[in-house]
Amino acid sequence: MATVTVRNGIDVDQLVATIGAIKEQPSISTFTFKATTSWKEGTLNHAEIGQFIHDGERVERPQPFRLTGDEPPVLLGANRGPNAVELVLAALGFCYGVGFVANAAARGIDLSELRYEVEGDIDVQNFLGMTKERRPGFSAIRACAWVRSPNATQGQLDELCQYVQDTSPVRDIIANPVPVDTTLEVLS
Amino acid sequence: MATVTVRNGIDVDQLVATIGAIKEQPSISTFTFKATTSWKEGTLNHAEIGQFIHDGERVERPQPFRLTGDEPPVLLGANRGPNAVELVLAALGFCYGVGFVANAAARGIDLSELRYEVEGDIDVQNFLGMTKERRPGFSAIRACAWVRSPNATQGQLDELCQYVQDTSPVRDIIANPVPVDTTLEVLS
Repeated sequence: MATVTVRNGIDVDQLVATIGAIKEQPSISTFTFKATTSWKEGTLNHAEIGQFIHDGERVERPQPFRLTGDEPPVLLGANRGPNAVELVLAALGFCYGVGFVANAAARGIDLSELRYEVEGDIDVQNFLGMTKERRPGFSAIRACAWVRSPNATQGQLDELCQYVQDTSPVRDIIANPVPVDTTLEVLS
Repeated sequence: MATVTVRNGIDVDQLVATIGAIKEQPSISTFTFKATTSWKEGTLNHAEIGQFIHDGERVERPQPFRLTGDEPPVLLGANRGPNAVELVLAALGFCYGVGFVANAAARGIDLSELRYEVEGDIDVQNFLGMTKERRPGFSAIRACAWVRSPNATQGQLDELCQYVQDTSPVRDIIANPVPVDTTLEVLS
């Protein structure tokens, strides 16, 4: 009987090989990801996400991904895309989703369904310059995973859910401080 | 001579009216934003961003926005979309962009160009379960604004850039801790 090497669409052999390769050469675990955003008009911005740096080498995608950001009318926009804080919530769901599925595969857990509902509370008074008493960003974020597995117990899934939180890049970025250095170049 | 009420595509009258309305009724500054992500296969996830709660009332967009998230092949995906941490970088650029343009408009600063290049350094060893010594998320983020204005001085733009950082929701979410509560519901 052949060994299952793909579970939940994750190539477990490749995952194990990647971990082995990093043990041999730790620098291949380092990445610099990039995004460029361009203002169009009003609250409308476009983003391009294409290349990244892996172990010091530039990697290009076949084509860059393009995103549109805007605000709803109540926040001076025209609903041409999600706003920036909504994107952060989607990023958390994506990150949890990848972590859950990959770690489930590594543990022999099959998944037939996985969905995250993510929400965050925000008060725009600081953003609007009205007060510094309330923070500009989310005061709280709640995420709920809905999962269906044909072969895992509730206990296994609970434990996996916690492990995914502990190792999630986006959860870490949100829940813990990341240094952000911002500079300005004036074009003449 | 008519007063200019739209600058950089921002309706400054609406902005001033919004601030006035919040002063009258502070609860209208509160929002709960939402995103739902659904796992498809492997590292592929889709997101829907549609409704949000404003001052306790549900607001629907005409149609939900849809996003695709995936990983590059080196991270077990097939490049069908940006990954989660790249989305966070785009969100920061979008957030800075909206803040810069809106606050420029409020100050009488015209902009003819605005672009953000954002990058973040990450080591995937923690995500892969190899170590807890390195954090799962970005260790550092760098953003550079490229701006062109026909009527602002370097000093005015520097001051605006700093103000936008101080009041940016996404910068705050990244640079300062946000409580994230994650729960699991097992579907039978």
